[in-house]
Amino acid sequence: MSKPSLARGTRDFGPEQMAKRTFIFDTIRRSFQRYGFLPLETPAFENLSVLMGKYGDEGDQLLFKLLNSGDFSGKLSDEDWKEGYKPLTTKISEKGLRYDLTVPFARYVAMNRGTLAMPFKRYQIQPVWRADRPQKGRYREFYQCDADVVGTDSLLCEAEIVTLLHDILPALGITDFTVKINNRKILSGIAEMIGAHGLEGSLCVAIDKLDKIGKDKVVEELLERGFSSESISQLEPVFNLSIENEPFTELRSWLSDSEIALKGIQELEEVWAMVKVLGLENAKIEFDVTLARGLSYYTGAIFEVKANNVQIGSISGGGRYDNLTGTFGVPGISGVGISLGVDRIYDVMEELDLFKESQINGTKVMISNFDEEAFTFGLSMLPKLRNAGINSEIYPDQVKLKKQLDYADRKNIHFVILIGSEEMQSGLLTLKNMKTGEQQKLNLEEILFKLTNVDI
Amino acid sequence: MSKPSLARGTRDFGPEQMAKRTFIFDTIRRSFQRYGFLPLETPAFENLSVLMGKYGDEGDQLLFKLLNSGDFSGKLSDEDWKEGYKPLTTKISEKGLRYDLTVPFARYVAMNRGTLAMPFKRYQIQPVWRADRPQKGRYREFYQCDADVVGTDSLLCEAEIVTLLHDILPALGITDFTVKINNRKILSGIAEMIGAHGLEGSLCVAIDKLDKIGKDKVVEELLERGFSSESISQLEPVFNLSIENEPFTELRSWLSDSEIALKGIQELEEVWAMVKVLGLENAKIEFDVTLARGLSYYTGAIFEVKANNVQIGSISGGGRYDNLTGTFGVPGISGVGISLGVDRIYDVMEELDLFKESQINGTKVMISNFDEEAFTFGLSMLPKLRNAGINSEIYPDQVKLKKQLDYADRKNIHFVILIGSEEMQSGLLTLKNMKTGEQQKLNLEEILFKLTNVDI
Repeated sequence: MSKPSLARGTRDFGPEQMAKRTFIFDTIRRSFQRYGFLPLETPAFENLSVLMGKYGDEGDQLLFKLLNSGDFSGKLSDEDWKEGYKPLTTKISEKGLRYDLTVPFARYVAMNRGTLAMPFKRYQIQPVWRADRPQKGRYREFYQCDADVVGTDSLLCEAEIVTLLHDILPALGITDFTVKINNRKILSGIAEMIGAHGLEGSLCVAIDKLDKIGKDKVVEELLERGFSSESISQLEPVFNLSIENEPFTELRSWLSDSEIALKGIQELEEVWAMVKVLGLENAKIEFDVTLARGLSYYTGAIFEVKANNVQIGSISGGGRYDNLTGTFGVPGISGVGISLGVDRIYDVMEELDLFKESQINGTKVMISNFDEEAFTFGLSMLPKLRNAGINSEIYPDQVKLKKQLDYADRKNIHFVILIGSEEMQSGLLTLKNMKTGEQQKLNLEEILFKLTNVDI
Repeated sequence: MSKPSLARGTRDFGPEQMAKRTFIFDTIRRSFQRYGFLPLETPAFENLSVLMGKYGDEGDQLLFKLLNSGDFSGKLSDEDWKEGYKPLTTKISEKGLRYDLTVPFARYVAMNRGTLAMPFKRYQIQPVWRADRPQKGRYREFYQCDADVVGTDSLLCEAEIVTLLHDILPALGITDFTVKINNRKILSGIAEMIGAHGLEGSLCVAIDKLDKIGKDKVVEELLERGFSSESISQLEPVFNLSIENEPFTELRSWLSDSEIALKGIQELEEVWAMVKVLGLENAKIEFDVTLARGLSYYTGAIFEVKANNVQIGSISGGGRYDNLTGTFGVPGISGVGISLGVDRIYDVMEELDLFKESQINGTKVMISNFDEEAFTFGLSMLPKLRNAGINSEIYPDQVKLKKQLDYADRKNIHFVILIGSEEMQSGLLTLKNMKTGEQQKLNLEEILFKLTNVDI
């Protein structure tokens, strides 16, 4: 008999955490729906042919793979065993767990492109799994909340990502946040400008650290990465003007020779303008030329959201990709997506104390259980409470009242109805408020009215 | 470039299916909450030590197992490879996918028993995975919706399972159903009575087929299973009285010599009585002495729910178990649980045409996009619609109106706002009802009022 334990890097979510998480999911879902996104769910596991090669070598390693069922090893030769685990994996495993929501979405779009009304706006809220080394705040199972529009180049999509985030985060109570924006085309333009065409990946990895390690260290790293001193000297504007808001005058003049950079700047300006027309006068958006993520797929806008004054990484990220389904043989489908990290949002909300007790949709009232007669009396009340939409229960066993009240307390039940012989005779029941200790004598109708209207 | 496909036995759920499934989940969840059940979620994978041996040999085979990450084969010897896949599995796999919700729940209770307020009422709505051979209506990934009360012997739990089912199913529109009940103690008593003590498993497998194959074939099967003719002859009452409702006069007189059977009958009667006090005068419950499921764990009541007049197996099942966490070293925790099968409920609702269009929480109104000026005008309207809680979007591209209306049609959007130069001048916009074709000239306030109050 083994002592039971959780698999490493996984968590149970008990009632209290579930209530808080459900509040986050519901809020995000409601915003997604108001924006016309429709729900999609894909299976927990996919054929490895769908997943492999989509997340880089590291991602391939971090995919959880399912052992083929039945006699997976019967047909393997001695040689197969000795080839090492990588080739062996392909022989004994054909399926893997969902690693993100984007690749399954791309697979879905590729398979259903004939029947989908384009542009297709979908949201997806599901767990993903990664065989990462577990550590504080990093789990092997975690939820992603994604919204994507595919099948249109319109910059409206980018603008709506910005307003959507301004819809979701304040609804969660997170009001102090920054939506950072960059554009891959500007990064490409800079690389071009300094004579390092195509090296924006390497460039960005270094520049991205400006905040943390300072200019001198960044320069050092760029030298190590093979950038020439001359190239680096041309980056001076990046160091001085990493954050500039619209109009992008300095940026435009610096990058005036790069067609692609100017295109990127123009896109940013259009997004800024649309965000204003969409009613966000004081949008919490910030252009950040050092923002670089997803460079292997983003081709236009790049987003990242930070909660200010909380020591936690980004709570959301996204961008424009021009070739979502190319890898599945369906070229030319452009889209914009955003992904919200529920675990980090949860941590931010905990740190800022943003959860309200009333978000726990638990039992509102418990009927006590003194003796057989009172129990029967209580039983007959129960359907009336529930039909009125009041979450309610009766204590199942005839044990000491103290134990029953203790149960109500621990389950955070706000009211207890006490029924004794006096109460049954008079029809006036005792309603005890577990938070204040206050007791009132009320008849059933009065209790129903009170419990339906009280806001706890 | 491979043509993308779904893993065998799995499904995508697109917007329309998601809307219907969400309606089912929400309805069930709401009922669970009204009864005081609290939510729990457990990880998709568990250590195999938690899962193995809990579902019988067949279950062990049907568990999806995760290949250990990293170099899983490096330390294995030539002998290990030759032992066959079963012993090999334990060396290269330590985790498996959730096979049901009961074992993870038992693990959770065992691990948290010190802090849980007992009795503990939890519900859990999550997918499970089984490496079954896929066939019509049987999938490798499917959802279960479970509610369990543990930590009390009170028959209230059984009675509340009955009323809960009468709460959930009509709320889904399923009004013609039968909750079949039996009691394991009665089955034990019958086996004892006919001199086949402990053989109720074997007995029940045969008797369970009475409906399908008739009495003669059942007798034949019992003979094959080693029951004596004398034993079988004593089963006559079962064949004649398979269904009898309270009071259980005949049953009681037949089984009057079996203490355990009488206990079972008494329990049934108490449940029947409580159900009545709980307000269900015409409960759709039926005692069925041939009902036998989960004999390896149920110790008291056994439930099964059928939708009548639909050719589909049971849509729900459950029962009382006396030793939920014994396998994890925590004895003495009794409980009652019920599990609802969402896929079958979905099929029943489709067959009976019970889904309403309004359950799809899609886009309610789309703003058309004629030209730059109208687009900007439309953009400025969008936040007003969304702030009023109306799911809305603007068509992102300036393409032919026909294409835009076609999109609205395919996405089942009920209203389109047409904005041309005339509309912008007058402030009277054209609201087109996509279902009736009707067009109205309204100002924005009138549109907001109409769309907020219309029930589609």
